[in-house]
Amino acid sequence: MEDVLKPTDARRLEDELLQRLSIEQLAVTTIRTLGIDAVEAASSGHPGTVMGLAPVAYTLWQRFLRYDPDHPVWTNRDRFVLSIGHASMLLYAVLHLAQVKAKNPKYEAPGRLSVRLDDIRSFRQLSSRCAGHPEHMWTSGVECTTGPLGQGVATSVGMAIAERWMAKNFNRPSFELIDFDVYALCGDGCLMEGVAQEAASLAGHLGLSHLCWIYDNNRITIDGPTDLSFSENVVGRFAALGWHVQSVDDANDIEQLTRAFRAFKAEATRPTLIIVDSHIGWGSPNKQDSAAAHGSPLGEEEARLTKRNYGWPEEAKFFVPSSVVEHFADGMGERGRALYQQWHERVERYRLAFPDLYDRLYKMQHRELPDDWDKDLPTFEASQEGIALRKASGKVLNALSRNVPWIVGGSADLASSTQTRLDAYTDFQSDGSGNNIHFGVREHAMGSIINGMSLCKLRSYGSTYLVFSDYARPSIRLSAMMELPVVYVLTHDSISVGEDGPTHQPVEHLASLRALPHLLTIRPGDANEVVEMWKVIMQLRHRPVALILTRQNVPTIDRSKYAPATGAQRGAYILADADGGEPQVLLLATGSEVPLCIAAYEQLEADGIRARVVSMPCWELFEDQDQGYIDHVLPPKLHARVSVELSSTFGWAKYVGKTGATMGVELFGASAPVEELHKKFGFTLDNVVAAAKAQLVAHGD
Amino acid sequence: MEDVLKPTDARRLEDELLQRLSIEQLAVTTIRTLGIDAVEAASSGHPGTVMGLAPVAYTLWQRFLRYDPDHPVWTNRDRFVLSIGHASMLLYAVLHLAQVKAKNPKYEAPGRLSVRLDDIRSFRQLSSRCAGHPEHMWTSGVECTTGPLGQGVATSVGMAIAERWMAKNFNRPSFELIDFDVYALCGDGCLMEGVAQEAASLAGHLGLSHLCWIYDNNRITIDGPTDLSFSENVVGRFAALGWHVQSVDDANDIEQLTRAFRAFKAEATRPTLIIVDSHIGWGSPNKQDSAAAHGSPLGEEEARLTKRNYGWPEEAKFFVPSSVVEHFADGMGERGRALYQQWHERVERYRLAFPDLYDRLYKMQHRELPDDWDKDLPTFEASQEGIALRKASGKVLNALSRNVPWIVGGSADLASSTQTRLDAYTDFQSDGSGNNIHFGVREHAMGSIINGMSLCKLRSYGSTYLVFSDYARPSIRLSAMMELPVVYVLTHDSISVGEDGPTHQPVEHLASLRALPHLLTIRPGDANEVVEMWKVIMQLRHRPVALILTRQNVPTIDRSKYAPATGAQRGAYILADADGGEPQVLLLATGSEVPLCIAAYEQLEADGIRARVVSMPCWELFEDQDQGYIDHVLPPKLHARVSVELSSTFGWAKYVGKTGATMGVELFGASAPVEELHKKFGFTLDNVVAAAKAQLVAHGD
Repeated sequence: MEDVLKPTDARRLEDELLQRLSIEQLAVTTIRTLGIDAVEAASSGHPGTVMGLAPVAYTLWQRFLRYDPDHPVWTNRDRFVLSIGHASMLLYAVLHLAQVKAKNPKYEAPGRLSVRLDDIRSFRQLSSRCAGHPEHMWTSGVECTTGPLGQGVATSVGMAIAERWMAKNFNRPSFELIDFDVYALCGDGCLMEGVAQEAASLAGHLGLSHLCWIYDNNRITIDGPTDLSFSENVVGRFAALGWHVQSVDDANDIEQLTRAFRAFKAEATRPTLIIVDSHIGWGSPNKQDSAAAHGSPLGEEEARLTKRNYGWPEEAKFFVPSSVVEHFADGMGERGRALYQQWHERVERYRLAFPDLYDRLYKMQHRELPDDWDKDLPTFEASQEGIALRKASGKVLNALSRNVPWIVGGSADLASSTQTRLDAYTDFQSDGSGNNIHFGVREHAMGSIINGMSLCKLRSYGSTYLVFSDYARPSIRLSAMMELPVVYVLTHDSISVGEDGPTHQPVEHLASLRALPHLLTIRPGDANEVVEMWKVIMQLRHRPVALILTRQNVPTIDRSKYAPATGAQRGAYILADADGGEPQVLLLATGSEVPLCIAAYEQLEADGIRARVVSMPCWELFEDQDQGYIDHVLPPKLHARVSVELSSTFGWAKYVGKTGATMGVELFGASAPVEELHKKFGFTLDNVVAAAKAQLVAHGD
Repeated sequence: MEDVLKPTDARRLEDELLQRLSIEQLAVTTIRTLGIDAVEAASSGHPGTVMGLAPVAYTLWQRFLRYDPDHPVWTNRDRFVLSIGHASMLLYAVLHLAQVKAKNPKYEAPGRLSVRLDDIRSFRQLSSRCAGHPEHMWTSGVECTTGPLGQGVATSVGMAIAERWMAKNFNRPSFELIDFDVYALCGDGCLMEGVAQEAASLAGHLGLSHLCWIYDNNRITIDGPTDLSFSENVVGRFAALGWHVQSVDDANDIEQLTRAFRAFKAEATRPTLIIVDSHIGWGSPNKQDSAAAHGSPLGEEEARLTKRNYGWPEEAKFFVPSSVVEHFADGMGERGRALYQQWHERVERYRLAFPDLYDRLYKMQHRELPDDWDKDLPTFEASQEGIALRKASGKVLNALSRNVPWIVGGSADLASSTQTRLDAYTDFQSDGSGNNIHFGVREHAMGSIINGMSLCKLRSYGSTYLVFSDYARPSIRLSAMMELPVVYVLTHDSISVGEDGPTHQPVEHLASLRALPHLLTIRPGDANEVVEMWKVIMQLRHRPVALILTRQNVPTIDRSKYAPATGAQRGAYILADADGGEPQVLLLATGSEVPLCIAAYEQLEADGIRARVVSMPCWELFEDQDQGYIDHVLPPKLHARVSVELSSTFGWAKYVGKTGATMGVELFGASAPVEELHKKFGFTLDNVVAAAKAQLVAHGD
């Protein structure tokens, strides 16, 4: 590329610079100018924070972070989360300068750099590892996808919880395997978001002393000065939440930063917040301390003036002095390699001393399951009275948690309602013991926290009512984007909630979860389908799940009469069929409406009509089946179809077409006992039968 | 009903009680026992908080609330928001005892009680005004639908903003029309929710001194003691947010409560938090201070023991001593009536002194529009270069805001990007001046706050990127449930956001908003459709809107060649048609994909294929049209259909059927310039044309 300097010119420039700047200044300025140049080249991006916080990133990585550039997935590495994802170039610059290696999807390192200089040159272009915001699945060394504000800090709390849990569960005398720290860099925006408050409150409550947030106090937001909308006493707020608060009044003062990080390391009972007063766009003569430095390139002329101000060659672009790379290699690189080596040796001895624990750690870190992970799972006898599917799920989850000790999770203050408590374990405590986390009434932080736990390879789950999944939606999206196998257990799944009324009755939630890419939305039709779906869930390694369960009892289907529940594993299956398999009408249902359709099927059969009931607990899994199976279950030529689901009908046209019938709930619910609601909303046996018959008429059968 | 006492028995009981209890104790105990009895009768509900907080509700209503029971929609009434919606019986009991009248949908009071004793008896039953959680549209006197925790307090901030704005805009020397206070009663759950933090932070920033939150510090959550997950210093936290904090250490101490409310009334620059130490299930011998008192009936025996403990007749159910009703009538009733009367007289004088202002207030309070509300709206010339639809919308909104002065809103720190700043107005200030609110990076609170503003009849709006509507989703749901005409301006509406990448690129959001009952999801196809849709929006009185707009330029369609943009008002219309109106294939699109379909139409026409382009900016409005129009636009017999939308295809099957083609985005986006993304995701002219031709083949045309 034309902006590449000849090696001789580069060496000369570097020599000149080293006469004027210390190696630290050189490193910091390299980060800054890489940020400026990348944003200029892309004609879009956020230069200001990279310029303001380069010394913070430098100090943390070079002096503190315990991280081996050759092993970016080392279990005990310190985690660095860039919660201000728009400042992605800060992270990319450091990943490049530290020469962090890429890993492949099998967590093996093939040797190439995660972020090459060419990636930085092509920042924000289609093939570049330097995407606009850091993407965990795309760029090694990105611990967490960030960009939506508040998510990074909240996720870091999950990582810090995982650290405590792993330390407690794997460390043994003389074998301290786990003691990593979690750092998250955040801004005003992160701290304004409610999810950050929820997470900070819980982190303070749990006394997560391995957690350090660094707050970029630059007094500028997109719309102008922070004091347009933010005038909190941040010190007081975090002190009230039980945090240890440090202040650094100059982001350029590396020694002051160092003292603050040391204070964090010395703190044993509280999470730490380091407030760093900084200047957005530092060094830009005309844009420093202004919103203009936030989200737009400086512009060619201002970039030039800024470099001049830094004492940097004005014409050089993407200039990386080799001494800076060496400096990082000598500092954080050497430290990290030595630590990794020691750790690796320790683990080898641990393997001999504690083979079972080693095996457990290995499997967990590779998202494998223990042998016998599925032993002692319940099966449920056919029963008209049935069982609430949240209860059935609770039994399965409890059995699984005895087999898979690293299932850790909890509820947003609804464990007793969602039935997700793990009876074999105690409450999670600051010392890392216990598998039951009390998230408090904090659904949003719960989502981000279980993401953070999953990033550390715990099998994490969180539970609340389906209707309150809305609160956690931004986190659910990130679960899907990061391809994390977390489980959202969402109960009280329809207007059948009853008396609590419309605020507690989900209507649109199934549709909106199904619309979310990569997420598996699962709504089993009886207790045995719950068992089968948990089997699917446990074997997932890269997909999140929303498991949707009833509050109320649902009959347990007689499997001697109808198809086995194992069919549910394919997402949809023929549960009851017409003789000879040539039905006149299809009844499609999920969840509590499956038994209703079975009843309708029996009525239709008695009336001489050949019906087929298809239970469809998971549309996404069904659509992953081969076309032959799909057409077998839903014969394309059969147009008489009725979908039955106590939910918005939005989306069902895909299966019933323009001419099929959809039974659903199009408005909000009502407060009344469940039987009355079923009547009011038309979910009666008679109505299902009538709809099926009307379909036959409509399609001329 | 069998539990009704004979009048003579009731009088005797009341006389006995009055010998032992003060009238205040009698009133408080009536509230408590109504709560207990209603929950027992319903066999479900939340008795504990009603028992714990009855004295708080009593003190506030009887001694402070400026509220005329005969005029529950009086503009200047004090607002009482029960943020802990599950304690609904507390509100219902007070509404009944205060004899608050019902209003009809025209805000007229037909004279009957809002909450009759029969409603309380049938608490949580289908026809009762006493739904499980308080519903604004269902029960007069319910200022805000609550239940999802945190929403009530956040909404109360919007009411307090509305108070300041109205005071500034309508009060004149000697004519103080507006000076109402806003009270919200909340619990641990509310304070744990992030939305409450966001709202509290902004309230502190704005110095909303007419706002008072009362925090029920009962130390119990659903899962057990609060300290399982909550150990904040609440005093310190709120002080750090700029609040005035008062503590009351005994919820039963009416005089201490009175002093705290007086201190609130005396505070002139800060919002007030009153922390009330209370006992959940107060007076229940076996359930007080336990989670068991939260969400289940006490049980018949415990209810009996509790009444005995209160010195209340054990057998009486739903017993309302007439002296309690008289007591409320003499206290809050008389005070409220007098205040209303004075206010009414003042308004009559105001009407003469300031007829224009009066007219403005009247129209605003009746959700009417000024004459000429739609004057000076822009029209946009046909242009291939076009204009970004967020910019077009900004121009329309600015014109409207000059005509309708009570349009008030803002952005979650993205006003410059969403183009929602009102240039004719200044920033909103503590004194109520200005129409531009800086919500900060607080999307969730923004949603709740604009709900609160709308409940006070401002035409409120909030803006952010479409992808971040997820953060506000619980508030959007409540906008719809409360039927509030708020506008969510959601820009950057697809992967065309470009370089910011997947975290900033909505995919599933259109589908999930369309799935939400009662909400209008509107995605106009060019600048002139934006104008037409704003005309629709302004005339809405009871429906919220999600207005979805592009970041990037979109060609402005040549309306001399294609159908006029007014068609958009019907939700969907034929924009370009085959000669003679007999198309072979339908191209269905919204937003930025409409011009793409026009281009494809022209290509198909050149290739001799008769196509029709249907622009579908609002599915919900389209489905409200008569069947004739619907069939005219989408002829039922024409099966060759292609939907084109840069979004999840989820839901489109409704219009294209099982056999039509859907062009969309099924996975997350990518970080790259917009043209490259269109290529990567297949949104090219060639692909649309090819899809249309494939449909002709598939359907044998």
